[in-house]
Amino acid sequence: MPTLNRQIRLRARPDGIPQAEHFELAEAPLEPLTAGQFRVRNDYLSVDPAMRGWVSAVGNYSTPVGLGEVMRSFAAGEVVESRHPDYPVGERVMGLFGWQRYAVSDGRSVIRKVREHDLPLSASLGILGLNGITAYLGLTEIGQPKAGETVVVSTAAGSVGSAVGQIAKLLGCGTVGITGGPEKVDLCRAEFGYDAALDYKAESDLSAAVAAACPDGVHVYFDNTAGAVSDAVHPHLAIGARVVICGTASIASWDPPPVGPRVERHILVKRARMQGFLFFDHAAKFDAAVAQLADWLRAGTLRHREDILDGIEQAPGAIAGLYRGENLGKRLIRLTDA
Amino acid sequence: MPTLNRQIRLRARPDGIPQAEHFELAEAPLEPLTAGQFRVRNDYLSVDPAMRGWVSAVGNYSTPVGLGEVMRSFAAGEVVESRHPDYPVGERVMGLFGWQRYAVSDGRSVIRKVREHDLPLSASLGILGLNGITAYLGLTEIGQPKAGETVVVSTAAGSVGSAVGQIAKLLGCGTVGITGGPEKVDLCRAEFGYDAALDYKAESDLSAAVAAACPDGVHVYFDNTAGAVSDAVHPHLAIGARVVICGTASIASWDPPPVGPRVERHILVKRARMQGFLFFDHAAKFDAAVAQLADWLRAGTLRHREDILDGIEQAPGAIAGLYRGENLGKRLIRLTDA
Repeated sequence: MPTLNRQIRLRARPDGIPQAEHFELAEAPLEPLTAGQFRVRNDYLSVDPAMRGWVSAVGNYSTPVGLGEVMRSFAAGEVVESRHPDYPVGERVMGLFGWQRYAVSDGRSVIRKVREHDLPLSASLGILGLNGITAYLGLTEIGQPKAGETVVVSTAAGSVGSAVGQIAKLLGCGTVGITGGPEKVDLCRAEFGYDAALDYKAESDLSAAVAAACPDGVHVYFDNTAGAVSDAVHPHLAIGARVVICGTASIASWDPPPVGPRVERHILVKRARMQGFLFFDHAAKFDAAVAQLADWLRAGTLRHREDILDGIEQAPGAIAGLYRGENLGKRLIRLTDA
Repeated sequence: MPTLNRQIRLRARPDGIPQAEHFELAEAPLEPLTAGQFRVRNDYLSVDPAMRGWVSAVGNYSTPVGLGEVMRSFAAGEVVESRHPDYPVGERVMGLFGWQRYAVSDGRSVIRKVREHDLPLSASLGILGLNGITAYLGLTEIGQPKAGETVVVSTAAGSVGSAVGQIAKLLGCGTVGITGGPEKVDLCRAEFGYDAALDYKAESDLSAAVAAACPDGVHVYFDNTAGAVSDAVHPHLAIGARVVICGTASIASWDPPPVGPRVERHILVKRARMQGFLFFDHAAKFDAAVAQLADWLRAGTLRHREDILDGIEQAPGAIAGLYRGENLGKRLIRLTDA
């Protein structure tokens, strides 16, 4: 067992999207465990758009990460030392263990034990973790699609979006993905099976393109972006449409909130429902979601991509890269050194 | 039986709020009934904010009223001639009979038979009609308030809003009304029992006033206005809040849609639900709603006001007056001539 832990800490609070310079790499001694604790060796650290919110001082669904603290993140690894009966050495776990090689937990930071030993551990952070569970539960619990309906997805090639599109298809829906650039459009069509894929960067009139792709209207809009993409979708909501608000990737800063076309008339006339989805509210359904997703993975009917960066030094700049759209797949940091 | 019918017809399509000059008064002969028809003598014509939408060419939840057609409206009256077994002479009915003294129906334009013979017929167009039913079903079906929660209402002294505030109170909620001008603020407090009433015209910082009046946040926002009033409420939504989109009275024109602060971040962070309510979607629950509202009326626990104008000549200018806020109570046109 090594004696030093390598960590990424928050150095300065960003105004908007966190950049590499807002973090610093530091070393800390490994403290001995007390009764009820166990130590996890993180093998993968997650990089998620939501982390922007976790370091924001603006009102949010969680306490902001403090300056000098280890960056909050999902991570997956193995218990390497334990004084907790439920978490023996060798148990694989996924949880909020932070951007660090070693984490100490009393169990409360664990999201779940990773028992799919036939599937790679990295999947527990993506298609079997935040992204896949968000896609599955956001779509089924909030979007409530019915077979034959049309589901539109923004950031359609992303790690949440690509799962939403495929799950909607598996549930019998027509799917329209909105993404940026020809490479992602191809991916949406060829790999993720969207019936149509629209390039918001190339379309001269995205609203007209959405209307053409959705002749019966948009029954479910799974919204990961807000902004101009959503402005193009809202006018085409079908009567009784459901809009899942899952992320706001296109908005660089919410302080002050940017302006856009008001949505109330669409919501009223279409009797639509717009509702926020937050992963942590649905913990009681995580196991069922993972079981279904793992079944689809094993059957080969659900595809996913990973974008793996090697070494904890890659973590600080990795969030900004997500917002630049440079990754094709779930972004992870792989740790292999001591 | 007279031989002539007096009608208000749509003369020109308004761009925004309909004014008197968009309508004309005309006379038409009373045609004989065919089998399955009956004739209603309208004693009250309704004047509702929603009528703006009914004459708008912009996409809406109903076909626009055609130029030269009788203005669509709710009305209440008595069957005076009948060739329909279910609607005998003397039956009181409320329905979409239009702005005219006499209407011919085959039953499809009837919303309901008015059987509360102990209560005035005019109530069937307000507290026991569109307004009261909208308040009751919009609040209970979409807003779903729980005892102890805080309900905020815009156009709080209006015929829908005043009922929402009182019903929320009867259901055990705290109530905060937002209205315009000292007279309506007094009405909210003294007559409609709001725990707090805010004057959006007088408050220098309406958002701060909402925050102060709702220390636990806004659990249900019953929104009749959209616009600046809503912009002041949205930042104070509680986790899990429900926003009932019932009307957009503050927006003069939706073509093009006005801009305002984007709402997605509030909806995501608060896991709020924003949903449109349309009266006509809930017909199966009208009778139950009326029964409950009538019980409260008889018990004296639900107050309402009427603003009655006499003579069909008053109808053409009456919608614009609603949007100027000149009425205190449900606006009706009373017809007493032949």
